[in-house]
Amino acid sequence: MHAIYQYQEFFISYLESQLITKEPKNLYEPISYILDLGGKRMRPVLTLMTAEVFNVDYKKALAAAMAVEVFHNFSLVHDDIMDDAPLRRGHQTVHEKWDVNSGILSGDAMLILAYQYFEQYEPAIFMQLAKLFSKTALEVCEGQQWDVDFETRDNVTIAEYLKMIEYKTAVLVAAAMKMGAIIAETSVENANLIYEFGLNLGLAFQLQDDYLDAFGDPETFGKQVGGDIIENKKTYLYLKAMAFSSKEQASQLANVFSSRLDDNTDKIMWVKDIFNTSGASKATQQEIQEYTSKAFVTLEKMHIEEDKKAMLRTFGENLMSRNV
Amino acid sequence: MHAIYQYQEFFISYLESQLITKEPKNLYEPISYILDLGGKRMRPVLTLMTAEVFNVDYKKALAAAMAVEVFHNFSLVHDDIMDDAPLRRGHQTVHEKWDVNSGILSGDAMLILAYQYFEQYEPAIFMQLAKLFSKTALEVCEGQQWDVDFETRDNVTIAEYLKMIEYKTAVLVAAAMKMGAIIAETSVENANLIYEFGLNLGLAFQLQDDYLDAFGDPETFGKQVGGDIIENKKTYLYLKAMAFSSKEQASQLANVFSSRLDDNTDKIMWVKDIFNTSGASKATQQEIQEYTSKAFVTLEKMHIEEDKKAMLRTFGENLMSRNV
Repeated sequence: MHAIYQYQEFFISYLESQLITKEPKNLYEPISYILDLGGKRMRPVLTLMTAEVFNVDYKKALAAAMAVEVFHNFSLVHDDIMDDAPLRRGHQTVHEKWDVNSGILSGDAMLILAYQYFEQYEPAIFMQLAKLFSKTALEVCEGQQWDVDFETRDNVTIAEYLKMIEYKTAVLVAAAMKMGAIIAETSVENANLIYEFGLNLGLAFQLQDDYLDAFGDPETFGKQVGGDIIENKKTYLYLKAMAFSSKEQASQLANVFSSRLDDNTDKIMWVKDIFNTSGASKATQQEIQEYTSKAFVTLEKMHIEEDKKAMLRTFGENLMSRNV
Repeated sequence: MHAIYQYQEFFISYLESQLITKEPKNLYEPISYILDLGGKRMRPVLTLMTAEVFNVDYKKALAAAMAVEVFHNFSLVHDDIMDDAPLRRGHQTVHEKWDVNSGILSGDAMLILAYQYFEQYEPAIFMQLAKLFSKTALEVCEGQQWDVDFETRDNVTIAEYLKMIEYKTAVLVAAAMKMGAIIAETSVENANLIYEFGLNLGLAFQLQDDYLDAFGDPETFGKQVGGDIIENKKTYLYLKAMAFSSKEQASQLANVFSSRLDDNTDKIMWVKDIFNTSGASKATQQEIQEYTSKAFVTLEKMHIEEDKKAMLRTFGENLMSRNV
């Protein structure tokens, strides 16, 4: 086993070797551009790490890790078009730097390229990877559609919200890990347990993201603190605050929330106050803790060496104690 | 073997059985809508027919045929967004009836669904189908990108144009047929020959499309005759006319071609006249004939019964004598 930063390095040097210049350049340049923008590379790292947890050299998992990262970036390119986002990781989004058509088409090509990375495995493994990938990719699309739908709905339930983030975010984290297990040809039981572990960790991760968006340290948090509040995003914090409020308070929160202002300082302060006084903040932190615990319980059931469990646990703890 | 219209019927009833209502409906309704709009179903019919040419029941090929048709419709949905097209087969395009975001996202889902249809085959066949499919799908994206790029270039060569239509149109026809061969587990030689047959037929088909767009019978041609001329599309006819013209004539053609008018009657008449007098029309018809002949020569090399060859030849002849 290696340290997390080492898996990152292994993956990044593999990724760099894959950024080839190919014609037509209007199709392939945006792909290299977005893949080269950086990011934590959390998903591919999980694929490499999981392969080694199940006693197979990480090198065997590089292609699958790349498929996961290419797919993740495909979803960012298309999501940024849908959200009309100008920036991604501090740089222009693909549809801003090129145009919407280039964003659509190079995104499509990335989805196909992701499948092609599985071709480096033998048929039985190829099929397992491609099946898991298709199921996951479709769920990510469904999650994105729910997210879009929720914007114009005012009766989103907590259960619906959790399902949305499960599909939009957690299933890819889970699948990234299961792919490592598939490549290592571990038992079906282990493969399913690592999927469960990833799914719960992914859910905790996304709820943490919601939480940090409002309560993160402006010094260390990469994005603008309060961004979700400015955008009126119905996050877990918001839905819990609504659920915990009286009818009157809830309608006031909904009103403030839906306001579009030039200066959002007061709105952010007011809403954060409600998040705290309503108990929503605490409930969110509890929910994060619960999903993390669930992940760790799953870990205990796995048939792997104790040091491997400790490694996965450390990864989970690091992820949950982050403030970026 | 069955008649072509029978394969159409078999395919359509399979397709209808696949149109399920699933949540989120904003994701899945556009998919059912576009798949249900009709069309000749040429590509899936070729998959079914080819399976039977190589002595396997068409039923075994239905899932692959569906993958081809779903992929084809995915490309229509995304292309229509890029072309800002309001109508498809006489009905509203997906991004018009819903919105651009629904068009992007349900297109993405269709690309994934196409892969899922291959899951009904065993691993070795699955892998062959998925590999061929990925290669083809990526070529279709490249072809679409060339097509977009050509709009703003005035030095497109005939060779580049032929490569573009090969990628954008012909490779999918070729792959649709090769999939039938893969499912039938015929020899690699036969599978490659049927691919060649499909590729040349696909090229002839697309050039025919270019030709009919200008010279089709308005009574029977489905679309507006002269549509490509109105849109200033650099088709084979146009590129040949440019190549056959003096420098002066060419610059006049380029000028007239790039004009945007309220009434295009004169423009269409004038350009069609140049297509005829320059010899471009004749050269296009010859090129169509050449690709068709090439396809038929490939057919002769195949190790299949004579009645099967006759069947494929009839299909090709029907396709080439069409006026719609």
